[in-house]
Amino acid sequence: MRTIHVGMLGIGNIGKGTWQTLEQGRARIEETTGLDIRIDRILCRTIRPERAEAIGVTPAQAEALFTTDPAAILDDPAIDIVVELMGGIEPATSYMAQALKNGKHVVTANKAAIAANGEMLSQLARENSVMLRFEASVAGGIPIINAVSSPLLANTFSEMHGILNGTTNYILTQMSEYGKDYAEVLKDAQAKGFAEADPTADVEGIDAANKLSILISLIFGIKVGPDEIAREGITRISAHDIRFAKESGYRIKLLASAAEKDGKVYCSVEPALVPEDHPLASVSNEFNAVFVTGSAVDSLMFYGRGAGPLPTGSAVMGDVIEIAVEINKGNAFDNIPLLRYDADLTCAGEGAHRYYVRMTVANRTGVLGSIADTFGAHNISVKSVIQRGAGAADAREALPEVPLLFIVYETERSTLNEALAEISGKDIVLSVDNILRVED
Amino acid sequence: MRTIHVGMLGIGNIGKGTWQTLEQGRARIEETTGLDIRIDRILCRTIRPERAEAIGVTPAQAEALFTTDPAAILDDPAIDIVVELMGGIEPATSYMAQALKNGKHVVTANKAAIAANGEMLSQLARENSVMLRFEASVAGGIPIINAVSSPLLANTFSEMHGILNGTTNYILTQMSEYGKDYAEVLKDAQAKGFAEADPTADVEGIDAANKLSILISLIFGIKVGPDEIAREGITRISAHDIRFAKESGYRIKLLASAAEKDGKVYCSVEPALVPEDHPLASVSNEFNAVFVTGSAVDSLMFYGRGAGPLPTGSAVMGDVIEIAVEINKGNAFDNIPLLRYDADLTCAGEGAHRYYVRMTVANRTGVLGSIADTFGAHNISVKSVIQRGAGAADAREALPEVPLLFIVYETERSTLNEALAEISGKDIVLSVDNILRVED
Repeated sequence: MRTIHVGMLGIGNIGKGTWQTLEQGRARIEETTGLDIRIDRILCRTIRPERAEAIGVTPAQAEALFTTDPAAILDDPAIDIVVELMGGIEPATSYMAQALKNGKHVVTANKAAIAANGEMLSQLARENSVMLRFEASVAGGIPIINAVSSPLLANTFSEMHGILNGTTNYILTQMSEYGKDYAEVLKDAQAKGFAEADPTADVEGIDAANKLSILISLIFGIKVGPDEIAREGITRISAHDIRFAKESGYRIKLLASAAEKDGKVYCSVEPALVPEDHPLASVSNEFNAVFVTGSAVDSLMFYGRGAGPLPTGSAVMGDVIEIAVEINKGNAFDNIPLLRYDADLTCAGEGAHRYYVRMTVANRTGVLGSIADTFGAHNISVKSVIQRGAGAADAREALPEVPLLFIVYETERSTLNEALAEISGKDIVLSVDNILRVED
Repeated sequence: MRTIHVGMLGIGNIGKGTWQTLEQGRARIEETTGLDIRIDRILCRTIRPERAEAIGVTPAQAEALFTTDPAAILDDPAIDIVVELMGGIEPATSYMAQALKNGKHVVTANKAAIAANGEMLSQLARENSVMLRFEASVAGGIPIINAVSSPLLANTFSEMHGILNGTTNYILTQMSEYGKDYAEVLKDAQAKGFAEADPTADVEGIDAANKLSILISLIFGIKVGPDEIAREGITRISAHDIRFAKESGYRIKLLASAAEKDGKVYCSVEPALVPEDHPLASVSNEFNAVFVTGSAVDSLMFYGRGAGPLPTGSAVMGDVIEIAVEINKGNAFDNIPLLRYDADLTCAGEGAHRYYVRMTVANRTGVLGSIADTFGAHNISVKSVIQRGAGAADAREALPEVPLLFIVYETERSTLNEALAEISGKDIVLSVDNILRVED
């Protein structure tokens, strides 16, 4: 049985998950591919006995396995495939570049490095006739990159919507299920290890924007950097919004969306109202999903775990096995580059959408008409309006101020903002509390 | 640009959809792969002018394109890939076998032929160093075969549940949404072209059993013929069952299920109650989905259109493109056979499950206790029991008979049947109306 030699950069949670996935899957992999895939060397910052223990190797084995010198992997001619699981843009990018230049195939789970340097790394892979794979960088265990790169290649795609961040989806699901507010659920998620001590990258949509940037390149063949994607996080979502949306038949999800029209890509990461009978609405807690619309295949959704050591390990090992099989066949590696960048442009805005607007208004007659008139003057049509009180009709009558919810038909966000600036100026309007996109 | 030559067997709806998918996707396919994929010949039973019209070719082009002689494709050395879209076990199997023997790659959408003869055809492909692909044979446009064959190869799977038949899912969804009975919805589905004049293969689960047989081979590496799968259709489902299930938080779906335990495969195609918050519950109308549980990736679901000319064309062309790329690279085709048959066995029954039982009983005190005692005597624990009347409490009291619903904890179906035989014998029990599996 032929042995394929792997060097791994990093032995954090994902590294341990990848090791474990390989060990657990070894019998099936050998039986199916006839190959013995071995992780020969692991780069770590410091060599500590508990690292060996965590992956179940003896101290003697650990001595041969662990190294603190990247060159021991990147420049070792015996290594066929380098698996990069360090995270962060640098030094991960430089290490991957060096591995590719040395004729090694590279598999990575690193969304930040691929979103930032995927084009350069992809080019390097091509020049050196090796493969660069990064299935694990988007949506963890879900094989979405494989799907859009190969079996769906006859399709052109008009749009995609992803739930790409498990932390925010967990928070929104818990808010929805228990009627709790954002801050309370975040604290709970941090205690359970579902959210980091500094949750910024997750809750502000930065993590999702990195993944969306990669998917836009794969699906639309256009380069849009993560920083060029319109982005709004979930920190302004209140228990009110969730409840009101639910009462109108919607769930609130942090959607990473992109649509292509006439060569322009409209994209954003932002919370949106999704109809409760849409498959994306049933994606709960830490799960991820990607919904795409293709010219032939029409609607397609992939659902699964977007993070975690083993699901990510499953994606990493899927890439490793695919490359190992090609190595064994002695096949040429002038492979189709997965990332395509036909045009280098910024996101052309969000496009026209329906919106949900929650405001607090004075509890007086004439308020609704006045606001509706202003929407009308800006050519914004109102789809529905709901006035909610805190309790029964009698109690509501006594309240000096009440929430008022509008869902408006397709409009540009800038037009909506102009109308709302005018509406905010009315003395009957106490505050505009939230604006959320509606995906019908 | 290199041309890859395709011969197509059959030009029904799927054939037209495949042609259209290729023409619509031509620009993207050429740009991505650098290949010109051409359908050079099409086998049809009779050559009629409307066939040319349907795919937009001139009468002159049609003359070169259409043939009624299978040898004009199967024995033509210029043809690289044969696409089989005739359906049915024969002559499709013989034609595919001949193509493989002649060194041609074969792509098929034929579930019946693959379920019946996949092992033989797979072996022939191997012997002749060519590829046999059949993504379109299961779940139409959903790339599930690709997923379990390649990116998920590091996983072993413990179970899978599929909604694999669009006709029955459409009927069950319409029954659920409009409270209508089976016969009425079937008539409507037939009028709309969603169900065939003879709906037997769909509504009795035969179509789903063929697809499940293929998935079992791919996922568990075990051969279970479609006829060996325990199978029950949807014809006994009533509007009552749908409503009662809904009131208890479930949707009824025709599930094709398989689970592996200790080398045994438990499998069935049968209607089952699925919790309303499970992703499979949100799969509506003609959509299909496959839910798998892998050792590393955990839960994963693929959702999309399971039929239709273009979604099926998307899957067929995905296979064609993958083979075309390999041909162009001059790569070896000693590929991993997708179908694995480590053991040849019949389905080891359904295994122990929770069940929903609907019966009609006399409206008397003591009925519930008597039935519960019998369940207890057979070691069956009752999870919930609901007594429903046709109207208000007053009206209910006057009724001589009422429906009684049980959900029981895990038991073998044979044990349940024994208990129910005894229960049916009680004079207070008028009828046992339906028994459905519950997937919690």
